Amino acid sequence: MKRLTGTNEAISKILYQEQLELSQQNLDVEETVRAIIEDVKNRGDEALREYSATFDKIELTDFEVKQELIEQAFAEVDKDVLTALENAKSNIESYHRQQLETGFEDQPSSGVLRGQIIRPIERVGVYVPGGTAAYPSSVLMNVIPAKIAGVKEIIMITPPQEHFVPAILVAAKLAGVDKIYQIGGAQGVAALAYGTQTIPKVDKVTGPGNIFVATAKKQVYGIVGIDMIAGPSEIGVIADSTANPAYVAADLLSQAEHDVRARAILVTDSEELADAVEAEIEAQLKRLPREAIARPSIENNGRIIIAANTADMFDLMNKVAPEHLEIAMENAYDYLDQVENAGSVFLGHYTSEPIGDYYAGANHILPTTATSRFSSALGVHDFVKRIQYTQYSKAAVNSAEKDITTLAYAEGLQAHARAIEVRNDQN
Amino acid sequence: MKRLTGTNEAISKILYQEQLELSQQNLDVEETVRAIIEDVKNRGDEALREYSATFDKIELTDFEVKQELIEQAFAEVDKDVLTALENAKSNIESYHRQQLETGFEDQPSSGVLRGQIIRPIERVGVYVPGGTAAYPSSVLMNVIPAKIAGVKEIIMITPPQEHFVPAILVAAKLAGVDKIYQIGGAQGVAALAYGTQTIPKVDKVTGPGNIFVATAKKQVYGIVGIDMIAGPSEIGVIADSTANPAYVAADLLSQAEHDVRARAILVTDSEELADAVEAEIEAQLKRLPREAIARPSIENNGRIIIAANTADMFDLMNKVAPEHLEIAMENAYDYLDQVENAGSVFLGHYTSEPIGDYYAGANHILPTTATSRFSSALGVHDFVKRIQYTQYSKAAVNSAEKDITTLAYAEGLQAHARAIEVRNDQN
Repeated sequence: MKRLTGTNEAISKILYQEQLELSQQNLDVEETVRAIIEDVKNRGDEALREYSATFDKIELTDFEVKQELIEQAFAEVDKDVLTALENAKSNIESYHRQQLETGFEDQPSSGVLRGQIIRPIERVGVYVPGGTAAYPSSVLMNVIPAKIAGVKEIIMITPPQEHFVPAILVAAKLAGVDKIYQIGGAQGVAALAYGTQTIPKVDKVTGPGNIFVATAKKQVYGIVGIDMIAGPSEIGVIADSTANPAYVAADLLSQAEHDVRARAILVTDSEELADAVEAEIEAQLKRLPREAIARPSIENNGRIIIAANTADMFDLMNKVAPEHLEIAMENAYDYLDQVENAGSVFLGHYTSEPIGDYYAGANHILPTTATSRFSSALGVHDFVKRIQYTQYSKAAVNSAEKDITTLAYAEGLQAHARAIEVRNDQN
Repeated sequence: MKRLTGTNEAISKILYQEQLELSQQNLDVEETVRAIIEDVKNRGDEALREYSATFDKIELTDFEVKQELIEQAFAEVDKDVLTALENAKSNIESYHRQQLETGFEDQPSSGVLRGQIIRPIERVGVYVPGGTAAYPSSVLMNVIPAKIAGVKEIIMITPPQEHFVPAILVAAKLAGVDKIYQIGGAQGVAALAYGTQTIPKVDKVTGPGNIFVATAKKQVYGIVGIDMIAGPSEIGVIADSTANPAYVAADLLSQAEHDVRARAILVTDSEELADAVEAEIEAQLKRLPREAIARPSIENNGRIIIAANTADMFDLMNKVAPEHLEIAMENAYDYLDQVENAGSVFLGHYTSEPIGDYYAGANHILPTTATSRFSSALGVHDFVKRIQYTQYSKAAVNSAEKDITTLAYAEGLQAHARAIEVRNDQN
């Protein structure tokens, strides 16, 4: 891991620049994706069949993944995996239920009523990647918040496969997906955004995917809502001399193994800990099945910063705004109020970040590339709309008339003023 | 106004297609804007000065709009406008305060703690257009929710002018803007996103603007957060035979006067009301100062649909998902639970939409082009982040080990499993 020195301002600028570069996908697929979307919009199912034959090498007769296949997946899935998914589901549900919003209403003055109602988005589409990037945990994390929000219909799409990973279909069923269609890539996203003969148009598309999927999501944004465009995984660890180097190293590596573009950053006020973590990383790397990914990731993108004190560590990490933040200190909870920017925080020496990836209940779909400065983990709030309402009586609108029309005339919008004046018999 | 007939499904498809066309801005400024952003990013203030000289024909020596100018605006502003702005501010504040979220925390099992904290975004930039599109009401609507959220620093930018509209500076000061810089267009947005020698980099940019501003916001999205890209104004009115045609006509025209691309839609179960509204529109149009805008808007884009019954009216309007929705019926409040998609709802015969534009307190920055299917009015929630946290004791992580590692191994992520296993002395 490379060590950086300098002011927090300077270091954070370097780290941000590096992070932007790691997030950059140089493949320019804008035009390709635009053509695919246009084609699916115009030709529907026929286009989907052709793209599946070309890209997935599968001739589809039917898009829907039928109930029998899902039942078969339950029969095939490893029993321990099923139990783990059920327990994870229960934790994710109990965490996210706490995010449910209620509306409000007030009567600020006589004849005036105002409020806000919360409505679920009607229909949501969840993209689930195929092959080795098919994570049942991500199915739970995408679907459960939507379900809790009260979304009426949740459609899942995933690339066609000769044999689906059973845990994916099981997770979908457990989480409450209503229908699964086997269609992937930009064509799948286009189908969700515009609808086809078979696949219903949704109101919002969520879920991770490759560059084609991410680009398609960007392009259909506005026609449908989208969640976010995620960059590579990041972990930031704030550790003091009480931290266990073996734990810290293991956690840094858990993110490094995701992707050669993943990023691990250690900020510590203990030079000794930094040295020990580095030695541990080397020792643990050698025993890792995914060393070929984790080693270049940690060697190229890993960074260690020695800070002068606790305040400095938090200041720097707030500037970095990492996706995952571990606070490997005694009494870590007491430092929570120093956290300004992070997607998800893991407190204390035993709260290893993978606890959150799989199990504890907080969402693992998180803002990357310093976007936790202005955005948040996926949650129930992403699947609802807040609808405002206002009611004025005749007396109330008449009594507010002067203020309202004064502003309308000041803005040169006379028809606005007249709509108020017409309701006053005195005019 | 053109009348449409057919099933709700068919009508809503036509309306949506038309709406997309109205939202389309055919001017392609992508490349121009990209070059401006790149230039501001590289050359900072120097580039800003050049663009101001070119586009605004103003040689800027200083970007900041100084305190003296703001004080002068208070001296110059019409006293009734000042009072109206103060009253509007008070209403907007009391409405938005109800949107403040609190965090949560639970202890779902022994040794496990989970929660969510709410943090304001640190620094926000608000774009305020110049010239005739400078609306003091929009300044209040953009700034007040940010202020209530607890944003530490609110920067406003607006195109340089020989003489600023006093009400704009007054509204900015009342709402709590910390600093105002005179810089507009794509260059202004770029300055907010990347920072310059003078203008601080912000975390999120909000506020309306022309095609250059909108395109710049889209391009810097990811580097900073943005609010939304608004299309032309829309009003949908659901009216039955109890509605007053003069009121309905005045409200439809209040949106039509905004823009030749604005859109007014009347859905009613009363043919008689439809006829009367049309007659009223013609009568009122002739007396409107902005007839030259309102007439083509209402004639080209206005639509009337006669529905069979109340359920049908709401079903259609939910498919249309209008920015503003008026329910011009007796007991309108009772129909609120039939509203699924709308930005802001105005209940009953006296709640004219402009009450909401200026005064009542709900936000007037709203989702257009049917995006209320998946998004909401600007509010306090747009200026906060929800940060998750989790804490597991040693016993808790050891007891969850089997479930977590089972899932990690099932996903082929062994380093994830090892980060859990390393914390167990039994391994």
